[in-house]
Amino acid sequence: MHPPLADRLALEDLMVAYCYAVDALDDLDALLALFTADAELDFSAIGLPVLRGRTEMRRFYQGVFADMRHHTHCLTNFQVEQYRPERAVTRAYVHGLGIDRRGTAVEVHVRYRMECRLAPAGWRIARYWITPGMPLPGDLAAVHGDRY
Amino acid sequence: MHPPLADRLALEDLMVAYCYAVDALDDLDALLALFTADAELDFSAIGLPVLRGRTEMRRFYQGVFADMRHHTHCLTNFQVEQYRPERAVTRAYVHGLGIDRRGTAVEVHVRYRMECRLAPAGWRIARYWITPGMPLPGDLAAVHGDRY
Amino acid sequence: MHPPLADRLALEDLMVAYCYAVDALDDLDALLALFTADAELDFSAIGLPVLRGRTEMRRFYQGVFADMRHHTHCLTNFQVEQYRPERAVTRAYVHGLGIDRRGTAVEVHVRYRMECRLAPAGWRIARYWITPGMPLPGDLAAVHGDRY
Repeated sequence: MHPPLADRLALEDLMVAYCYAVDALDDLDALLALFTADAELDFSAIGLPVLRGRTEMRRFYQGVFADMRHHTHCLTNFQVEQYRPERAVTRAYVHGLGIDRRGTAVEVHVRYRMECRLAPAGWRIARYWITPGMPLPGDLAAVHGDRY
Repeated sequence: MHPPLADRLALEDLMVAYCYAVDALDDLDALLALFTADAELDFSAIGLPVLRGRTEMRRFYQGVFADMRHHTHCLTNFQVEQYRPERAVTRAYVHGLGIDRRGTAVEVHVRYRMECRLAPAGWRIARYWITPGMPLPGDLAAVHGDRY
Repeated sequence: MHPPLADRLALEDLMVAYCYAVDALDDLDALLALFTADAELDFSAIGLPVLRGRTEMRRFYQGVFADMRHHTHCLTNFQVEQYRPERAVTRAYVHGLGIDRRGTAVEVHVRYRMECRLAPAGWRIARYWITPGMPLPGDLAAVHGDRY
Protein backbone atom coordinates (compact mmCIF):
# COMPACT_ATOMS: atom_id res chain seq x y z
CA MET A 1 0.00 0.00 0.00
CA HIS A 2 1.33 3.39 -1.03
CA PRO A 3 1.35 6.04 1.70
CA PRO A 4 -0.65 9.19 1.04
CA LEU A 5 1.77 12.01 0.12
CA ALA A 6 1.15 13.83 3.41
CA ASP A 7 2.14 10.73 5.40
CA ARG A 8 5.13 10.07 3.14
CA LEU A 9 6.47 13.56 3.88
CA ALA A 10 5.50 13.51 7.58
CA LEU A 11 7.41 10.25 8.02
CA GLU A 12 10.48 11.73 6.31
CA ASP A 13 10.14 14.86 8.45
CA LEU A 14 10.08 12.67 11.57
CA MET A 15 13.38 10.98 10.72
CA VAL A 16 14.93 14.33 9.83
CA ALA A 17 13.62 15.79 13.11
CA TYR A 18 15.46 13.00 14.93
CA CYS A 19 18.71 14.07 13.25
CA TYR A 20 18.22 17.70 14.29
CA ALA A 21 17.36 16.64 17.85
CA VAL A 22 20.34 14.31 18.26
CA ASP A 23 22.67 16.89 16.70
CA ALA A 24 21.42 19.82 18.83
CA LEU A 25 22.89 18.04 21.87
CA ASP A 26 20.89 20.24 24.23
CA ASP A 27 17.21 19.28 24.51
CA LEU A 28 16.50 15.77 25.77
CA ASP A 29 12.76 16.37 26.08
CA ALA A 30 12.46 17.47 22.45
CA LEU A 31 14.37 14.35 21.41
CA LEU A 32 12.31 11.97 23.53
CA ALA A 33 9.05 13.53 22.33
CA LEU A 34 9.75 12.01 18.90
CA PHE A 35 9.34 8.52 20.36
CA THR A 36 6.43 6.60 21.85
CA ALA A 37 6.81 6.15 25.61
CA ASP A 38 7.43 2.41 25.16
CA ALA A 39 9.81 2.75 22.21
CA GLU A 40 12.55 0.16 21.71
CA LEU A 41 15.87 1.26 20.24
CA ASP A 42 18.16 -1.49 19.04
CA PHE A 43 21.70 -0.33 18.39
CA SER A 44 23.22 -3.76 18.99
CA ALA A 45 24.28 -4.22 15.35
CA ILE A 46 26.73 -1.32 15.77
CA GLY A 47 28.00 -2.40 19.19
CA LEU A 48 25.78 -0.11 21.22
CA PRO A 49 22.96 -0.99 23.63
CA VAL A 50 19.30 -1.94 23.27
CA LEU A 51 17.13 0.65 25.01
CA ARG A 52 13.56 0.00 26.15
CA GLY A 53 11.30 2.81 27.28
CA ARG A 54 11.78 6.44 28.14
CA THR A 55 14.01 6.00 31.22
CA GLU A 56 16.62 3.98 29.36
CA MET A 57 16.44 6.30 26.35
CA ARG A 58 16.87 9.35 28.57
CA ARG A 59 19.91 7.89 30.31
CA PHE A 60 21.55 6.91 27.01
CA TYR A 61 21.03 10.22 25.21
CA GLN A 62 21.99 12.15 28.36
CA GLY A 63 25.32 10.35 28.09
CA VAL A 64 25.60 11.12 24.38
CA PHE A 65 24.82 14.79 24.95
CA ALA A 66 27.36 14.96 27.79
CA ASP A 67 30.06 13.23 25.74
CA MET A 68 29.77 14.94 22.38
CA ARG A 69 30.90 18.42 21.40
CA HIS A 70 29.76 18.24 17.75
CA HIS A 71 27.28 15.99 15.98
CA THR A 72 26.15 15.87 12.36
CA HIS A 73 23.86 13.16 10.98
CA CYS A 74 23.12 13.53 7.27
CA LEU A 75 20.09 11.57 6.08
CA THR A 76 19.77 10.33 2.52
CA ASN A 77 17.83 7.67 0.60
CA PHE A 78 14.69 7.95 2.71
CA GLN A 79 12.17 5.27 1.83
CA VAL A 80 8.82 4.08 3.16
CA GLU A 81 9.30 0.33 3.33
CA GLN A 82 5.88 -0.63 4.68
CA TYR A 83 2.74 1.39 5.14
CA ARG A 84 -0.60 0.93 6.82
CA PRO A 85 -2.76 3.90 7.79
CA GLU A 86 -1.48 4.11 11.38
CA ARG A 87 1.78 2.19 11.17
CA ALA A 88 4.75 2.51 8.84
CA VAL A 89 8.30 1.23 8.54
CA THR A 90 10.81 3.69 7.11
CA ARG A 91 14.51 3.53 6.38
CA ALA A 92 17.35 5.71 5.21
CA TYR A 93 21.12 6.00 4.98
CA VAL A 94 22.95 8.16 7.48
CA HIS A 95 26.41 9.67 7.27
CA GLY A 96 27.25 10.48 10.87
CA LEU A 97 30.10 12.66 12.13
CA GLY A 98 30.98 13.48 15.68
CA ILE A 99 33.69 14.97 17.84
CA ASP A 100 33.59 14.18 21.52
CA ARG A 101 34.70 16.41 24.40
CA ARG A 102 38.17 14.88 24.38
CA GLY A 103 38.52 15.76 20.71
CA THR A 104 38.12 12.23 19.34
CA ALA A 105 36.49 12.35 15.90
CA VAL A 106 34.24 9.59 14.62
CA GLU A 107 32.64 9.10 11.20
CA VAL A 108 30.19 6.37 10.26
CA HIS A 109 27.97 5.28 7.39
CA VAL A 110 24.97 3.52 8.88
CA ARG A 111 21.35 2.66 8.06
CA TYR A 112 18.39 3.80 10.10
CA ARG A 113 15.15 1.83 10.20
CA MET A 114 12.14 3.06 12.13
CA GLU A 115 8.76 1.58 12.88
CA CYS A 116 6.45 4.54 13.29
CA ARG A 117 2.95 4.83 14.73
CA LEU A 118 0.41 7.55 14.20
CA ALA A 119 -0.38 9.14 17.58
CA PRO A 120 -2.97 11.90 18.05
CA ALA A 121 -0.19 14.51 17.86
CA GLY A 122 1.40 12.98 14.74
CA TRP A 123 3.80 10.19 13.79
CA ARG A 124 6.07 8.84 16.53
CA ILE A 125 8.97 6.37 16.50
CA ALA A 126 8.06 3.10 18.21
CA ARG A 127 11.07 1.00 17.17
CA TYR A 128 14.41 2.17 15.85
CA TRP A 129 17.29 0.11 14.55
CA ILE A 130 20.75 1.20 13.44
CA THR A 131 22.78 -1.19 11.30
CA PRO A 132 26.15 -0.66 9.59
CA GLY A 133 26.23 0.73 6.06
CA MET A 134 29.99 0.53 5.69
CA PRO A 135 32.38 -1.18 8.13
CA LEU A 136 32.44 0.80 11.37
CA PRO A 137 35.58 2.37 12.75
CA GLY A 138 36.89 0.87 15.97
CA ASP A 139 36.39 4.14 17.79
CA LEU A 140 32.58 4.16 17.73
CA ALA A 141 32.28 2.24 21.00
CA ALA A 142 35.07 4.41 22.39
CA VAL A 143 32.99 7.50 21.72
CA HIS A 144 29.43 6.41 22.51
CA GLY A 145 29.74 3.09 24.22
CA ASP A 146 31.84 3.67 27.30
CA ARG A 147 28.86 4.01 29.60
CA TYR A 148 27.56 0.54 28.85
CA MET B 1 5.64 21.67 -16.93
CA HIS B 2 5.62 20.91 -13.20
CA PRO B 3 5.21 17.26 -12.27
CA PRO B 4 2.22 16.37 -10.10
CA LEU B 5 3.42 15.77 -6.54
CA ALA B 6 2.77 12.03 -6.76
CA ASP B 7 5.00 11.76 -9.83
CA ARG B 8 7.66 14.00 -8.28
CA LEU B 9 7.91 11.67 -5.29
CA ALA B 10 7.59 8.46 -7.35
CA LEU B 11 10.50 9.60 -9.52
CA GLU B 12 12.61 10.33 -6.44
CA ASP B 13 11.63 6.96 -4.97
CA LEU B 14 12.77 5.28 -8.20
CA MET B 15 16.25 6.77 -8.01
CA VAL B 16 16.48 5.93 -4.32
CA ALA B 17 15.32 2.38 -5.08
CA TYR B 18 18.21 2.08 -7.52
CA CYS B 19 20.64 2.99 -4.73
CA TYR B 20 19.17 0.34 -2.41
CA ALA B 21 19.29 -2.26 -5.19
CA VAL B 22 22.88 -1.55 -6.21
CA ASP B 23 23.98 -1.48 -2.57
CA ALA B 24 22.20 -4.70 -1.59
CA LEU B 25 24.62 -6.56 -3.91
CA ASP B 26 22.43 -9.64 -3.90
CA ASP B 27 19.35 -9.36 -6.11
CA LEU B 28 20.00 -8.78 -9.81
CA ASP B 29 16.37 -9.27 -10.80
CA ALA B 30 15.17 -6.61 -8.36
CA LEU B 31 17.79 -4.23 -9.74
CA LEU B 32 16.97 -4.91 -13.39
CA ALA B 33 13.24 -4.55 -12.73
CA LEU B 34 13.83 -0.83 -12.18
CA PHE B 35 14.81 -0.42 -15.85
CA THR B 36 12.94 -0.76 -19.12
CA ALA B 37 14.04 -3.85 -21.06
CA ASP B 38 15.74 -1.68 -23.69
CA ALA B 39 17.40 0.71 -21.22
CA GLU B 40 20.70 2.34 -22.11
CA LEU B 41 23.22 3.05 -19.37
CA ASP B 42 26.06 5.38 -20.25
CA PHE B 43 28.88 5.34 -17.73
CA SER B 44 31.51 6.43 -20.26
CA ALA B 45 32.07 9.82 -18.60
CA ILE B 46 33.47 8.02 -15.55
CA GLY B 47 35.55 5.53 -17.53
CA LEU B 48 33.07 2.68 -17.38
CA PRO B 49 31.10 1.03 -20.21
CA VAL B 50 27.94 1.86 -22.12
CA LEU B 51 25.34 -0.86 -21.58
CA ARG B 52 22.41 -1.50 -23.90
CA GLY B 53 19.55 -3.79 -22.93
CA ARG B 54 18.98 -6.30 -20.20
CA THR B 55 21.67 -8.83 -21.15
CA GLU B 56 24.47 -6.27 -21.02
CA MET B 57 23.09 -4.74 -17.82
CA ARG B 58 22.86 -8.14 -16.18
CA ARG B 59 26.44 -9.02 -17.08
CA PHE B 60 27.76 -5.68 -15.80
CA TYR B 61 25.93 -5.71 -12.47
CA GLN B 62 26.70 -9.40 -11.98
CA GLY B 63 30.35 -8.35 -12.14
CA VAL B 64 29.78 -5.47 -9.72
CA PHE B 65 27.96 -7.73 -7.25
CA ALA B 66 30.71 -10.34 -7.51
CA ASP B 67 33.47 -7.76 -7.02
CA MET B 68 32.13 -5.62 -4.20
CA ARG B 69 31.91 -6.45 -0.51
CA HIS B 70 30.32 -3.13 0.60
CA HIS B 71 28.47 -0.47 -1.33
CA THR B 72 26.87 2.79 -0.19
CA HIS B 73 25.38 5.32 -2.60
CA CYS B 74 23.99 8.42 -0.86
CA LEU B 75 21.61 10.44 -3.01
CA THR B 76 21.13 14.18 -2.53
CA ASN B 77 19.87 17.16 -4.52
CA PHE B 78 17.19 15.22 -6.38
CA GLN B 79 15.56 17.33 -9.07
CA VAL B 80 13.04 16.81 -11.85
CA GLU B 81 14.72 18.45 -14.81
CA GLN B 82 12.06 17.79 -17.45
CA TYR B 83 8.56 16.45 -17.12
CA ARG B 84 5.86 15.27 -19.46
CA PRO B 85 3.03 13.02 -18.24
CA GLU B 86 4.71 9.75 -19.25
CA ARG B 87 8.35 10.80 -19.54
CA ALA B 88 10.65 12.63 -17.16
CA VAL B 89 14.33 13.45 -16.79
CA THR B 90 15.64 13.50 -13.24
CA ARG B 91 19.02 14.14 -11.72
CA ALA B 92 20.80 14.07 -8.39
CA TYR B 93 24.19 14.08 -6.70
CA VAL B 94 25.59 10.81 -5.41
CA HIS B 95 28.30 10.21 -2.85
CA GLY B 96 29.41 6.66 -3.50
CA LEU B 97 31.55 4.46 -1.29
CA GLY B 98 32.68 0.94 -1.91
CA ILE B 99 35.06 -1.72 -0.71
CA ASP B 100 35.81 -4.56 -3.06
CA ARG B 101 36.58 -8.18 -2.16
CA ARG B 102 40.32 -7.49 -2.16
CA GLY B 103 39.76 -4.70 0.38
CA THR B 104 40.31 -1.79 -2.02
CA ALA B 105 38.21 1.19 -0.96
CA VAL B 106 36.81 3.67 -3.43
CA GLU B 107 34.93 6.94 -2.84
CA VAL B 108 33.37 9.11 -5.54
CA HIS B 109 31.21 12.19 -5.93
CA VAL B 110 29.19 11.78 -9.11
CA ARG B 111 25.97 12.98 -10.72
CA TYR B 112 23.14 10.69 -11.79
CA ARG B 113 20.79 11.59 -14.59
CA MET B 114 17.88 9.37 -15.56
CA GLU B 115 15.34 9.46 -18.30
CA CYS B 116 12.28 7.73 -16.92
CA ARG B 117 9.14 6.39 -18.58
CA LEU B 118 5.81 5.59 -17.02
CA ALA B 119 5.11 1.89 -17.55
CA PRO B 120 1.87 0.19 -16.45
CA ALA B 121 3.58 -0.93 -13.23
CA GLY B 122 5.06 2.49 -12.49
CA TRP B 123 8.06 4.62 -13.48
CA ARG B 124 11.04 2.83 -14.99
CA ILE B 125 14.54 3.99 -15.97
CA ALA B 126 15.01 4.09 -19.75
CA ARG B 127 18.34 5.95 -19.90
CA TYR B 128 20.87 6.49 -17.15
CA TRP B 129 24.03 8.58 -17.21
CA ILE B 130 26.73 8.96 -14.58
CA THR B 131 29.05 11.95 -14.82
CA PRO B 132 31.76 13.12 -12.41
CA GLY B 133 30.84 15.56 -9.66
CA MET B 134 34.35 15.93 -8.30
CA PRO B 135 37.52 14.56 -9.94
CA LEU B 136 37.43 10.78 -9.77
CA PRO B 137 40.08 8.75 -7.99
CA GLY B 138 42.29 6.64 -10.21
CA ASP B 139 41.08 3.48 -8.54
CA LEU B 140 37.50 3.59 -9.87
CA ALA B 141 38.34 1.66 -13.04
CA ALA B 142 40.48 -0.65 -10.92
CA VAL B 143 37.44 -1.52 -8.82
CA HIS B 144 34.60 -1.63 -11.36
CA GLY B 145 36.23 -1.58 -14.74
CA ASP B 146 38.48 -4.58 -14.88
CA ARG B 147 35.96 -6.70 -16.71
CA TYR B 148 35.77 -4.35 -19.67
CA MET C 1 1.18 26.03 10.45
CA HIS C 2 2.01 23.14 8.16
CA PRO C 3 2.97 24.08 4.59
CA PRO C 4 0.80 22.65 1.81
CA LEU C 5 2.68 19.79 0.15
CA ALA C 6 3.26 21.78 -3.05
CA ASP C 7 4.95 24.57 -1.06
CA ARG C 8 6.95 22.10 1.01
CA LEU C 9 8.40 20.58 -2.16
CA ALA C 10 8.81 23.92 -3.96
CA LEU C 11 10.82 25.24 -1.00
CA GLU C 12 13.04 22.16 -1.04
CA ASP C 13 13.44 22.49 -4.82
CA LEU C 14 14.54 26.12 -4.31
CA MET C 15 17.34 25.18 -1.92
CA VAL C 16 18.41 22.34 -4.20
CA ALA C 17 18.35 24.73 -7.18
CA TYR C 18 20.74 26.98 -5.27
CA CYS C 19 23.18 24.04 -4.93
CA TYR C 20 23.03 23.30 -8.66
CA ALA C 21 23.52 26.99 -9.50
CA VAL C 22 26.49 27.49 -7.16
CA ASP C 23 28.06 24.22 -8.35
CA ALA C 24 27.61 24.96 -12.08
CA LEU C 25 30.09 27.84 -11.67
CA ASP C 26 29.04 29.34 -14.98
CA ASP C 27 25.71 31.20 -14.85
CA LEU C 28 25.57 34.16 -12.47
CA ASP C 29 22.17 35.33 -13.73
CA ALA C 30 20.58 31.94 -13.09
CA LEU C 31 22.03 31.95 -9.59
CA LEU C 32 20.92 35.50 -8.78
CA ALA C 33 17.41 34.81 -10.12
CA LEU C 34 16.85 32.53 -7.11
CA PHE C 35 17.07 35.53 -4.77
CA THR C 36 14.91 38.60 -4.24
CA ALA C 37 16.63 41.76 -5.49
CA ASP C 38 17.09 42.99 -1.91
CA ALA C 39 18.26 39.67 -0.47
CA GLU C 40 20.67 39.60 2.44
CA LEU C 41 23.24 36.81 2.67
CA ASP C 42 24.98 36.43 5.99
CA PHE C 43 28.04 34.18 5.83
CA SER C 44 29.74 35.85 8.81
CA ALA C 45 29.44 32.76 11.02
CA ILE C 46 31.82 30.91 8.68
CA GLY C 47 34.24 33.81 8.29
CA LEU C 48 32.87 35.10 5.00
CA PRO C 49 31.11 38.39 4.23
CA VAL C 50 27.58 39.72 4.65
CA LEU C 51 26.12 40.60 1.24
CA ARG C 52 23.22 42.98 0.72
CA GLY C 53 21.45 43.27 -2.61
CA ARG C 54 22.16 42.11 -6.12
CA THR C 55 25.35 44.11 -6.77
CA GLU C 56 27.15 42.70 -3.73
CA MET C 57 25.86 39.20 -4.44
CA ARG C 58 27.02 39.40 -8.04
CA ARG C 59 30.49 40.56 -7.06
CA PHE C 60 30.85 37.80 -4.45
CA TYR C 61 29.68 34.92 -6.64
CA GLN C 62 31.68 36.26 -9.59
CA GLY C 63 34.71 35.83 -7.36
CA VAL C 64 33.63 32.35 -6.30
CA PHE C 65 33.05 31.28 -9.93
CA ALA C 66 36.43 32.71 -10.94
CA ASP C 67 38.25 31.01 -8.07
CA MET C 68 36.75 27.51 -8.09
CA ARG C 69 37.39 24.69 -10.51
CA HIS C 70 35.03 22.15 -8.87
CA HIS C 71 32.12 22.60 -6.49
CA THR C 72 29.77 20.06 -4.92
CA HIS C 73 27.19 20.97 -2.29
CA CYS C 74 25.16 18.00 -1.05
CA LEU C 75 21.94 18.96 0.73
CA THR C 76 20.37 16.74 3.38
CA ASN C 77 17.92 17.08 6.28
CA PHE C 78 15.74 19.67 4.57
CA GLN C 79 13.12 21.05 6.93
CA VAL C 80 10.49 23.79 6.84
CA GLU C 81 11.06 25.59 10.14
CA GLN C 82 8.36 28.26 9.83
CA TYR C 83 5.57 28.66 7.33
CA ARG C 84 3.05 31.33 6.45
CA PRO C 85 1.34 31.38 3.04
CA GLU C 86 3.82 33.81 1.45
CA ARG C 87 6.83 33.50 3.74
CA ALA C 88 8.76 30.50 4.99
CA VAL C 89 11.98 29.72 6.82
CA THR C 90 13.76 26.56 5.72
CA ARG C 91 16.96 24.85 6.77
CA ALA C 92 19.16 21.94 5.83
CA TYR C 93 22.59 20.39 6.29
CA VAL C 94 25.16 20.82 3.54
CA HIS C 95 28.30 18.80 2.86
CA GLY C 96 30.35 21.07 0.66
CA LEU C 97 33.42 20.15 -1.37
CA GLY C 98 35.51 22.36 -3.55
CA ILE C 99 38.79 22.54 -5.42
CA ASP C 100 40.02 25.96 -6.42
CA ARG C 101 42.05 26.88 -9.50
CA ARG C 102 45.30 26.49 -7.60
CA GLY C 103 44.29 22.95 -6.67
CA THR C 104 43.49 23.65 -3.00
CA ALA C 105 40.75 21.31 -1.80
CA VAL C 106 38.25 22.32 0.85
CA GLU C 107 35.54 20.27 2.57
CA VAL C 108 32.95 21.61 5.01
CA HIS C 109 29.87 20.51 6.92
CA VAL C 110 27.62 23.53 7.31
CA ARG C 111 23.97 24.42 7.85
CA TYR C 112 21.90 26.51 5.45
CA ARG C 113 18.96 28.57 6.62
CA MET C 114 16.82 30.52 4.19
CA GLU C 115 13.96 32.95 4.61
CA CYS C 116 11.90 32.60 1.46
CA ARG C 117 9.15 34.75 -0.01
CA LEU C 118 6.53 33.85 -2.56
CA ALA C 119 6.99 36.10 -5.60
CA PRO C 120 4.70 36.00 -8.65
CA ALA C 121 7.17 33.68 -10.41
CA GLY C 122 7.56 31.37 -7.42
CA TRP C 123 9.51 31.15 -4.14
CA ARG C 124 12.63 33.30 -3.86
CA ILE C 125 15.37 33.52 -1.21
CA ALA C 126 15.18 36.78 0.75
CA ARG C 127 17.66 35.97 3.52
CA TYR C 128 20.27 33.26 3.64
CA TRP C 129 22.55 32.26 6.50
CA ILE C 130 25.35 29.72 6.58
CA THR C 131 26.53 28.47 9.98
CA PRO C 132 29.05 25.74 10.82
CA GLY C 133 27.83 22.16 11.23
CA MET C 134 31.22 20.75 12.18
CA PRO C 135 34.35 22.79 12.94
CA LEU C 136 35.52 24.46 9.75
CA PRO C 137 38.93 23.83 8.22
CA GLY C 138 41.32 26.76 8.29
CA ASP C 139 41.48 26.84 4.51
CA LEU C 140 37.89 28.01 3.93
CA ALA C 141 38.80 31.69 4.10
CA ALA C 142 41.88 30.91 2.01
CA VAL C 143 39.64 29.55 -0.74
CA HIS C 144 36.64 31.87 -0.71
CA GLY C 145 37.57 34.79 1.46
CA ASP C 146 40.62 36.36 -0.10
CA ARG C 147 38.66 38.99 -1.96
CA TYR C 148 37.21 40.52 1.22
